[in-house]
Amino acid sequence: MYRTNTCGELRLADAGKKVTLAGWVQRIRKMGSLNFVDLRDRYGITQLVADDTADKTVIDTINSLGREYVIQAEGVVSERQSKNPKMPTGDIEIKLDKINILNAAVTPPFTIEDQSDGGDDLRAKYRYLDLRRGPLQRALALRHRMAIETRNYLDGNNFMEIETPFLIKSTPEGARDFVVPSRMNPGEFYALPQSPQTFKQLLMVAGYDRYFQIVRCFRDEDLRADRQPEFTQIDCEMSFVEREDILKMFEGLVKHLFKNVLGKTFDEPFERISYDEAMSFYGSDKPDLRFGMQMHEITSLVQGKGFSVFDSAEYVGAIAVPGCANYSRKQTDELTEWVKRPQVGAKGLVFIKFADEVKSTIDKFYTPEQIAEIAKNVGAEKGDLILILCGPKHKTQVALGTLRLEMGSRLGLRKPEDFKPLWVYDFPLLEWDDETQRFYAMHHPFTSPKPEDLDKFYSNKQEDLADVKANAYDIVLNGNEIGGGSIRIFDRKIQERMFEILGFSHEQAEYRFGFLMNAFKFGAPPHGGIAFGFDRLCALFGGQETIRDFIAFPKNNMGRDVMAEAPSVIDDAQMEELFLKSTVKKEQ
Amino acid sequence: MYRTNTCGELRLADAGKKVTLAGWVQRIRKMGSLNFVDLRDRYGITQLVADDTADKTVIDTINSLGREYVIQAEGVVSERQSKNPKMPTGDIEIKLDKINILNAAVTPPFTIEDQSDGGDDLRAKYRYLDLRRGPLQRALALRHRMAIETRNYLDGNNFMEIETPFLIKSTPEGARDFVVPSRMNPGEFYALPQSPQTFKQLLMVAGYDRYFQIVRCFRDEDLRADRQPEFTQIDCEMSFVEREDILKMFEGLVKHLFKNVLGKTFDEPFERISYDEAMSFYGSDKPDLRFGMQMHEITSLVQGKGFSVFDSAEYVGAIAVPGCANYSRKQTDELTEWVKRPQVGAKGLVFIKFADEVKSTIDKFYTPEQIAEIAKNVGAEKGDLILILCGPKHKTQVALGTLRLEMGSRLGLRKPEDFKPLWVYDFPLLEWDDETQRFYAMHHPFTSPKPEDLDKFYSNKQEDLADVKANAYDIVLNGNEIGGGSIRIFDRKIQERMFEILGFSHEQAEYRFGFLMNAFKFGAPPHGGIAFGFDRLCALFGGQETIRDFIAFPKNNMGRDVMAEAPSVIDDAQMEELFLKSTVKKEQ
Repeated sequence: MYRTNTCGELRLADAGKKVTLAGWVQRIRKMGSLNFVDLRDRYGITQLVADDTADKTVIDTINSLGREYVIQAEGVVSERQSKNPKMPTGDIEIKLDKINILNAAVTPPFTIEDQSDGGDDLRAKYRYLDLRRGPLQRALALRHRMAIETRNYLDGNNFMEIETPFLIKSTPEGARDFVVPSRMNPGEFYALPQSPQTFKQLLMVAGYDRYFQIVRCFRDEDLRADRQPEFTQIDCEMSFVEREDILKMFEGLVKHLFKNVLGKTFDEPFERISYDEAMSFYGSDKPDLRFGMQMHEITSLVQGKGFSVFDSAEYVGAIAVPGCANYSRKQTDELTEWVKRPQVGAKGLVFIKFADEVKSTIDKFYTPEQIAEIAKNVGAEKGDLILILCGPKHKTQVALGTLRLEMGSRLGLRKPEDFKPLWVYDFPLLEWDDETQRFYAMHHPFTSPKPEDLDKFYSNKQEDLADVKANAYDIVLNGNEIGGGSIRIFDRKIQERMFEILGFSHEQAEYRFGFLMNAFKFGAPPHGGIAFGFDRLCALFGGQETIRDFIAFPKNNMGRDVMAEAPSVIDDAQMEELFLKSTVKKEQ
Repeated sequence: MYRTNTCGELRLADAGKKVTLAGWVQRIRKMGSLNFVDLRDRYGITQLVADDTADKTVIDTINSLGREYVIQAEGVVSERQSKNPKMPTGDIEIKLDKINILNAAVTPPFTIEDQSDGGDDLRAKYRYLDLRRGPLQRALALRHRMAIETRNYLDGNNFMEIETPFLIKSTPEGARDFVVPSRMNPGEFYALPQSPQTFKQLLMVAGYDRYFQIVRCFRDEDLRADRQPEFTQIDCEMSFVEREDILKMFEGLVKHLFKNVLGKTFDEPFERISYDEAMSFYGSDKPDLRFGMQMHEITSLVQGKGFSVFDSAEYVGAIAVPGCANYSRKQTDELTEWVKRPQVGAKGLVFIKFADEVKSTIDKFYTPEQIAEIAKNVGAEKGDLILILCGPKHKTQVALGTLRLEMGSRLGLRKPEDFKPLWVYDFPLLEWDDETQRFYAMHHPFTSPKPEDLDKFYSNKQEDLADVKANAYDIVLNGNEIGGGSIRIFDRKIQERMFEILGFSHEQAEYRFGFLMNAFKFGAPPHGGIAFGFDRLCALFGGQETIRDFIAFPKNNMGRDVMAEAPSVIDDAQMEELFLKSTVKKEQ
C-alpha cells in the first residue's frame, strides 16, 4: 500500500503520528520560509508543509512539483498554526520528512476546482479530469449510495435481482432499437433492449414473484437535450398484486431513499391525483407541487359577456401569481411575448392586476364585480397578478401549465432542496396519432385497461377507445416523471385485442411477441410493475436539473463519446465477417 | 394483494388462521372423499384440501383444474392427519372455503419437477417453464445473494460502483467485438465492451480510488461449450496499491461470500503458488487442489538407462495414483487409449504398478532398485499406480495435468461441496504466436511487467521477452479460474514499449488507445485490479460445473436465444436508416 491514511481522515487527535499519504497536488504555496502543498484524493485535502529545517531534497522536490502531480508524502501529523474551519482536516498539517513523485502531470487544460474555468466541450473531451472535480465526485458517490440503498430495500422485501439479456430480439414498436449484427447467424441482428419488459413478464410467468434489476437500457432516438442513448432503469415487477400493492411498495422505496440517502423523512403518504386532475390543475401529467398557483377553468364564468376571444374558446383558464399585481407594462409585455413563443404556443395573454386599483386588458368587457368574481374563482388575493389563457382545451391547459412553471421559477418557488413526490394515475390507455391514423399505446402494449372500461376497449368506435383508461401510474418528483408502470395484461385474449387495436396483424403480433403470448398460455399470474429512470432520480436527489453529471461517461447529443471518440469506423475485414456493406464511405 | 401468505411460510403455529394463498397447481389427488391440491409458488408448496363437507363449487373447481393452473385459494390453516417431515409446510394443510381460477394453463411440454422429463432443447425453448423448476429457482436465488453480498463487502470497503458505458469505441485486440451501427453517425460503429478495462483505468486517473461494477461484458467468439456471448463480471480496480493489497482485499471478498452465502469459514490464508510451480506440480495454471496427486519431474532420474523414449524426451513426469496398483490390463490399456486422445495428446503411457509385486511396462530397462527410486521420487506408496508421460516439456506437463484431473475424477476426489481456492501469480507477460510471428499479451496490454524484469522487457531478444514475468495473478477454485487481474502499467513510456512489443505502430496505438495514453499524461496513480467471472463463480458456489442454469436466459452455442428466436432479420427500412446492406439474403 502506498499510504497509511487517506487525505480526508486525519484530525487533531492524530497529532504526532507518522503517516504516509498519496494523492494529487491541488495547490503549492510559498510563504516566507514555509512551503505548503495541498494534497487531494477522493476523501479530502490535507495540507503538507516543509519549513527551512526540512531536508533539501524535500524542498527541491516541492519546487519541481506542478498541479495534478501524483505524489507520496511521509511526515508527522502536527497541529496547524492557523486553522481552517472550512476543511475537516483543517486543524492539522503534515510536517514533511519525505516526498516522492509517483507520476508527473502536464498542466490540465482547465482548473480542477468546484467551479472550473473549462467550457463544456473541453471538459467533455477530458472527462477523466472533469471527474476529478468535487461536484462530479459527489454526484457519483450519491449515485452509488442510491443504488446500494435501492438494493437494500428491495432485497429486504424479498425481491430478487435477475439479470436479463442484452442481446435480444428486435421488436420494433415504440422507439427505435439499436441493433447488433450476428456473425454466427449471417444476415441476422440482435437488438439492445429498450427495457427488459418482456423478460420481466416472462419471469412472472416463471414464478419469480418479485423481480428487480438496476439495468442499462438503450434507445436509438434523436436526442433531445438531456437524453442519453443508453440510460439506467430500476426495473421492477411483482406478481399477485393490484395497483395499491405496487404504489405502497414503491412509495416505500422512494421514502427509504429519501431517508437513507438524504436524511429526509416523509411521514404522510404521497399525494395521488388522476391524470385528468393533473391536467386540470397543473396542465401537466407531471406536476410540480413545490408551489401552488393551481390552474382554474373559468370558461363558463367569462363567456357571454361580449368578449369574443373568450366566447369562441373551448377553454379559458387562469392562474393567480402571488404578489405580482405591481408588474410594469414592460413586464407584462415581456410575459405576453413569452407565452407566444412556439415552445409555449399561446395566441396571447390576458391579465388582471388584482390590487386595490384593479387593472386589466379586459376592463371594457367585464364590470369590476365580474372581475372580482373571476379573481375569487381563481383564488386570487389582493396583490396577485391573474394570468389567463384561452383556446383549445388540451393545448391551452398545457400552455397554462408551462406558464405556471415559469412563474414558479421566476418567483423562486421551485427550490432544488424541496421535494414533493406524488402519484399520477388513470392515464388514457391509447393515444390517437393523426399522421399514421392509428392508436399507439400511451404506456406500452402490455398495460391493462381498467376493468370498468373493458366494454369501451372492445368497442370499435374511436371515441370509445380514446376514452379507455389504463391501469397505469407514474411517480412524479418536482415536475419530473421519475418512474412509471402499470398492471399488465395477463389474459391472452385481452392482449390479442390490444395488438388488434394497435393495428398489428395476427402474424406481426406473433412474429414480434409470439414467445410472450405463448408463455401466457401456460399459467400467467396477475402481475404489474414499475420502472424508475435512475439517472434522473439521482440528479433530482442531487438537486440538479440535468443528468449529465450523474453519469460517469455520458454521450453528447449526437450520441458521441467525445473523449473516447466513439462511434468510429471499423475495418473492412470485420464488415465482411458480419456480411455487411456500408452505403456510405468513411475514411478510418 | 391476491394473497395473505406465501406457499412457503405457514406452520403448525398458524393453525386456525384464515388465509388466502395464490400460486400454481403442482399436483391434484383424490383419496376417497378427500381432494388434495398442492399449490406452489417461489417460496414453497402448501397442501390444500377439500372434503365432502366442502362447498360444491369448490369441488367442481378442483375437478376442472389442471397442472400449472394459476389459482387463488381461501381457507383455514389446519393440522394435517399425516404429516410430511420433508416439507417445511408439511405439518399443515389449508381446508378450502373458496377457490378461484386466476388463469388456466395448457399442459406444459415437460414436468415442472426437480428432475424434469424434458430434454435440453425443449426446456430451452420453454425457458420460462424450465425456470419454474426448483434447481433453477435455487440457482438464481443464489446468484442474487452472491451479488448482494459482493456489494455489501465492497461498499463496506469504500468501493464505489460506477457504471461505465456499453456503447464504446471498438478496439480490436484480443477477442472480437460485437459492434453496433450508429444511425446518427453514418458508417460508424460502437462496440459493446469486452470488459470495462479502459474505463476503470480512466476512473483511477480520475481519482476514484476504489471502483467496482457487476457488469455485463460481450465477446463475439466461436462459442466453446459453456461459454456465452454475454457474460457478467465483478470488475474491480484500486489505486495506490501493490499486488499484496489486492490479493488481501479480494481474498477477503471470496471469504465473505463463502461465509455469508454458504456458511463456510476459511480461517487460513488461501494458498499461493507461482505460475511455474503450478505448471510443474499440476500441469495447469488453474490447479484443482481438492486432491493431491502432485506431478513430479523425473527426467534426470530416468535418463541414461537405455530407454530411448525417455532419453530423447525433453521432460519426463509422473503422478502416483493412490490405491490403483491393482488395475487390470484392460484398465491400463483403456488409460493408454485415453491419454492418446487428441484432447490430451500424449504419445503413450508408461505405468508402474507399485504393489508388493512391482509390475511395469519398463521392467526391462530399470532395476527394481531404480524403480523403487522412481517411486520414492514421485511420492508413491505401496498400492499406488504410477503413471508416466514424456515429451516436450510444456505440452507434456499439460497432458499429465489433464491425466491427473481425470484420475481425480475417477477416484471421486473432486467433490463439488469441497472448496479449495488459491492464488496463482507471476504469469509470463507475453505469449509468442508462431502463426502470426508476434507476441500477444497473456493477460492484456495494460498489465505491468515485474519491475525486476524491466531490463528484459526493453531487450529485443525474443527469449528475453518470453521470459518477462507479469505482475499478474489469478484466483482459482477447484480447477477453474474464477478471477484474474494485474497491477497496471501507469507509466506512459512503459505502455508505449508494451504496444511496440505487441507490434502496434504508433498510429495504431494512438487510434485505439489514444485517450487512455493521453489521460496518463495528466497524473496517473499506481493502480491495479481484478475481475471475477460472476457466472462461473455462482455455478461453482452452487456445486455445478456448467453456468447455464445460473443465467436466467442463456444463449445456445450458436449464440441464439431459442426461446425468443434471436437474432432475427430486421426490415429493409431499418437497414437503410443505418446505411447498411447485407451481403446475404434472408427472408423475414
